[in-house]
Amino acid sequence: MDLATLLGLIITLGFILGAILAGGSILLFVNVPSLLIVLGGSVSVVLMQFTLSQFFGAFKVAMKAFFHKNVDASQLIEQAGMLANVARKEGMMALESQEIENPFLNKGIQLCVDGHPPDLVRKMLSKDISLTIQRHETGQKIFKALGDIAPAMGMIGTLIGLVQMLANMDDPKSIGPAMAVALLTTLYGAVVANAFALPISDKLELRSQEEKTNRSLILETISGIQEGMNPRVLEELLKAFLPENQRTSSDNEE
Amino acid sequence: MDLATLLGLIITLGFILGAILAGGSILLFVNVPSLLIVLGGSVSVVLMQFTLSQFFGAFKVAMKAFFHKNVDASQLIEQAGMLANVARKEGMMALESQEIENPFLNKGIQLCVDGHPPDLVRKMLSKDISLTIQRHETGQKIFKALGDIAPAMGMIGTLIGLVQMLANMDDPKSIGPAMAVALLTTLYGAVVANAFALPISDKLELRSQEEKTNRSLILETISGIQEGMNPRVLEELLKAFLPENQRTSSDNEE
Amino acid sequence: MDLATLLGLIITLGFILGAILAGGSILLFVNVPSLLIVLGGSVSVVLMQFTLSQFFGAFKVAMKAFFHKNVDASQLIEQAGMLANVARKEGMMALESQEIENPFLNKGIQLCVDGHPPDLVRKMLSKDISLTIQRHETGQKIFKALGDIAPAMGMIGTLIGLVQMLANMDDPKSIGPAMAVALLTTLYGAVVANAFALPISDKLELRSQEEKTNRSLILETISGIQEGMNPRVLEELLKAFLPENQRTSSDNEE
Amino acid sequence: MDLATLLGLIITLGFILGAILAGGSILLFVNVPSLLIVLGGSVSVVLMQFTLSQFFGAFKVAMKAFFHKNVDASQLIEQAGMLANVARKEGMMALESQEIENPFLNKGIQLCVDGHPPDLVRKMLSKDISLTIQRHETGQKIFKALGDIAPAMGMIGTLIGLVQMLANMDDPKSIGPAMAVALLTTLYGAVVANAFALPISDKLELRSQEEKTNRSLILETISGIQEGMNPRVLEELLKAFLPENQRTSSDNEE
Amino acid sequence: MDLATLLGLIITLGFILGAILAGGSILLFVNVPSLLIVLGGSVSVVLMQFTLSQFFGAFKVAMKAFFHKNVDASQLIEQAGMLANVARKEGMMALESQEIENPFLNKGIQLCVDGHPPDLVRKMLSKDISLTIQRHETGQKIFKALGDIAPAMGMIGTLIGLVQMLANMDDPKSIGPAMAVALLTTLYGAVVANAFALPISDKLELRSQEEKTNRSLILETISGIQEGMNPRVLEELLKAFLPENQRTSSDNEE
Repeated sequence: MDLATLLGLIITLGFILGAILAGGSILLFVNVPSLLIVLGGSVSVVLMQFTLSQFFGAFKVAMKAFFHKNVDASQLIEQAGMLANVARKEGMMALESQEIENPFLNKGIQLCVDGHPPDLVRKMLSKDISLTIQRHETGQKIFKALGDIAPAMGMIGTLIGLVQMLANMDDPKSIGPAMAVALLTTLYGAVVANAFALPISDKLELRSQEEKTNRSLILETISGIQEGMNPRVLEELLKAFLPENQRTSSDNEE
Repeated sequence: MDLATLLGLIITLGFILGAILAGGSILLFVNVPSLLIVLGGSVSVVLMQFTLSQFFGAFKVAMKAFFHKNVDASQLIEQAGMLANVARKEGMMALESQEIENPFLNKGIQLCVDGHPPDLVRKMLSKDISLTIQRHETGQKIFKALGDIAPAMGMIGTLIGLVQMLANMDDPKSIGPAMAVALLTTLYGAVVANAFALPISDKLELRSQEEKTNRSLILETISGIQEGMNPRVLEELLKAFLPENQRTSSDNEE
Repeated sequence: MDLATLLGLIITLGFILGAILAGGSILLFVNVPSLLIVLGGSVSVVLMQFTLSQFFGAFKVAMKAFFHKNVDASQLIEQAGMLANVARKEGMMALESQEIENPFLNKGIQLCVDGHPPDLVRKMLSKDISLTIQRHETGQKIFKALGDIAPAMGMIGTLIGLVQMLANMDDPKSIGPAMAVALLTTLYGAVVANAFALPISDKLELRSQEEKTNRSLILETISGIQEGMNPRVLEELLKAFLPENQRTSSDNEE
Repeated sequence: MDLATLLGLIITLGFILGAILAGGSILLFVNVPSLLIVLGGSVSVVLMQFTLSQFFGAFKVAMKAFFHKNVDASQLIEQAGMLANVARKEGMMALESQEIENPFLNKGIQLCVDGHPPDLVRKMLSKDISLTIQRHETGQKIFKALGDIAPAMGMIGTLIGLVQMLANMDDPKSIGPAMAVALLTTLYGAVVANAFALPISDKLELRSQEEKTNRSLILETISGIQEGMNPRVLEELLKAFLPENQRTSSDNEE
Repeated sequence: MDLATLLGLIITLGFILGAILAGGSILLFVNVPSLLIVLGGSVSVVLMQFTLSQFFGAFKVAMKAFFHKNVDASQLIEQAGMLANVARKEGMMALESQEIENPFLNKGIQLCVDGHPPDLVRKMLSKDISLTIQRHETGQKIFKALGDIAPAMGMIGTLIGLVQMLANMDDPKSIGPAMAVALLTTLYGAVVANAFALPISDKLELRSQEEKTNRSLILETISGIQEGMNPRVLEELLKAFLPENQRTSSDNEE
């Protein structure tokens, strides 16, 4: 399991908290109306940009950034070679009894077993990949939108505070603290965007690319099996999907 | 009906209003000349960038962001299977008597019934899709342009106010309130852009993409029918357009 | 004739002037050296980026944004059907005597009459379209460059003014007015960019796209005529270029 | 020879100098340590991003922006017609004795004379074009990088000056001049980027596009000659590369 | 070995240090909590966006920016000609005994020797290139992410400092130094981004492009050998990959 996102989030918040505590009390940095306008305002603007179901689906997607277990490409390649071997020796129908954990590979194998022509199988799987990626992008976009709007809502909050402060400058002593409060919304917006929403959006994009690479690998596997490709050649072809230092061949350049 | 945009807009404005009222009177934030330069100036700059008909068409388009009812893709797929069945059993001409609600699907079916060759039908529908998308983009672009210009007009208004204030600093007491008024235009610009124009532009882009996906699905349907594809295979192929959790097949990965 | 750009420009300047007059004398906002550095500096930087002939051609191009009369696509389609009819009944040579107002359509028809093979005609017209669009883009780019540089020159002017003010702060009374003058260049730069150069650049881009769509329509027409396409089918195909509410067919969705 | 870049640079610097002199002595604006951090720092950051040979080659490239003499496309077209004529009448070998000034055209003709098949010639010349353009882009990128980093180095310089000023505010009289000096680096950075590096980068991009268009024209010429195209048809085809007002045909639209 | 990056980094830091020392003590610019929030916070946000292995791999990648020795393209071309010669005269099997230093070229030659069909070899090598480039991009992206986040963390640090300062303005004398400290984080963020992370990211992108060009050259070599291309023709074709001034032919334009 990949803990980098969770770890990174905790450490980042720790550094920010440390900087706050090093300079005085944390109470200076808590202001409920400021929190409301930045968090509430940002979330409701994001709501405007998507449908309700996309919006609430984003939480499920965020979990993926924290706890996603990635598919092991080298394991997929090994299984591909095994399946190609079975198909070659015992025929396509023999694939039906194989246990396949990965659901996308399983779907592709089912299409082979059902006897659909290679062109159609390729078309169906390709369309599936591009539409799955498109749906994954919605999750990223929601966090990206949150990261884009949070600093803007922070600025709106600060402007509101400044206007109120400037209109009532009778007591010079209150100017400093009033401006401190006004700046808090800008700070909240910057933290929400830079330490939470944007990094998660970027992480989800990375996940999406990995998923795409894995599904392309599976697509190549299915095509190879249908063409009756030599299992050894197929494995060799698929190894291009691995980073060079994970390949078992002797060539270990970088 | 998708209420997320309307809901989001109301909640956002509520949060902003709340932040204003929490700090004093709302009257501090109302200034008619400031409103005029930001709203009037922004709208007239947008007018410069488009034709009159595009400009006034934008209102109709905006309504779509609030009240658009989306086409149900799974219903389209079901209908596609039914139509393919009819075409296969009773011939292409039998499609003429079918009731088809979706106008784009209807148009495609009419082209089949008229006996145009598959290549030409595909070409006509593809061109139709790309040009429809292009026209939809005009609506987005108008709101995007409004969202881009509003903060700039806000800054222009603030600069005008600052120059006037700086040139007349005889009464120190008036400096604060004058600057408060100068900042109002920046605030107006930020609210118009971030809480209204840009989210609506993004929502319209989302709508446009959904429309494109649905029309691609219909294009595949028409092609499949003309090629005399097996209805069951066609439905299977079209299911790739659905999110994985809405497919009726047994594979329910994500 | 499309008056939106001219109208928009006048109204925008009206709003800005209104905001200035509402707050005092317009004389506060006139400063010749500030005008010189923003306008002169911006124009000469734009000159650096282009050739002399492109630079002076930009004025002619700008007029197009204000007074361009667009080609009517539905008229073109009607004419296309008529020409296809003539070509079908009386042969390609009969097209020579047809009066064709649109110069690009005329050129295409001449190529047909001259008996060039369809592939070559398509290639020549396609190349013509892409190179014409490329040249049109130069006009846009000049106004885009002006819109990008004007705020930067405004900032340079303000920095110069600030340095001069800060170095001589003996008379506190002069600080305010000196800073007002320093801010003027920023204001000028923002107005030139946002209320003039950038909207015109965007308008020219829109024109360029319309031109491209029309020329693609003409290209399809010529290809259809050379292939001896049925005039009714050709018109149907070309109608995809029209917005859906302008098509005469019964399908009036949006 | 195209003098627009040189002319533009001189006029721009003149306007900036004028604004400085209009407000007082130029000595206020000269500060050697500020110059060092902005110029030295920016150049050394650019050095980090490229190799030494690319870095020093940039000077040669910059000269091109100032003094480049462009190839005359209409002359190339004329020569193309003449060469096609020779090839048609006297055979490909007769091209060997032709004097061809343009080195890229010369290279293409040599390949024809050597008897390479059209596919290979096209492939070689296409690859040559794309790789030449890629190398030209390095020059642009260096000036673009300089234009991106200069304002950032200016801001770093200003921050250093501000920190030093704020830490020693015992003498209120020194605050103004100290801040003036701190702002100088921001001014230097803005001038280097906006009045020098970025316009030159844009100019080089324009040059690169012209070069690409000319080489595409030559590629079409060579292909036409190898296909034994009619010289008159070839010239007609190549005229699409000319702006419409330079074509000798009767169609003079814009 | 290319020393530009290391050299540039040292000189840049020298200029910044010079500007600091010219204005007073360097101690004003050292503040441990400020360093912690900018460096620690930025690095942990970057950690959020990638996996642990990608994150720690970035150090290895950074070394490449400093010490990478580039492949010599003209040497590759020479070797390509030699290999094509061997293949032509002695057959494909004779290539097995050739010593080939470049691992990617070696892999391609092995595929030829193994007797895979040209299509498959091309597909395997192409996939290898695109996936290698994709992996190289991870390194760039990590430094790009660091360069994007560092100024944001600097701003967050400054906002925290400002809020603390504004809330406690009892002692006017402490305002200046407190603000100096608050600005330090912005300075740190700007230096980390502009003088370290972003230039390294750009340098790695350059490296990646060079690698891609070299691998494309090798791909062309393998294809040429498999097609039995004339060695002299192959070398001529490959020369397009060289800058024009490094080609041995007589055409030395630019």
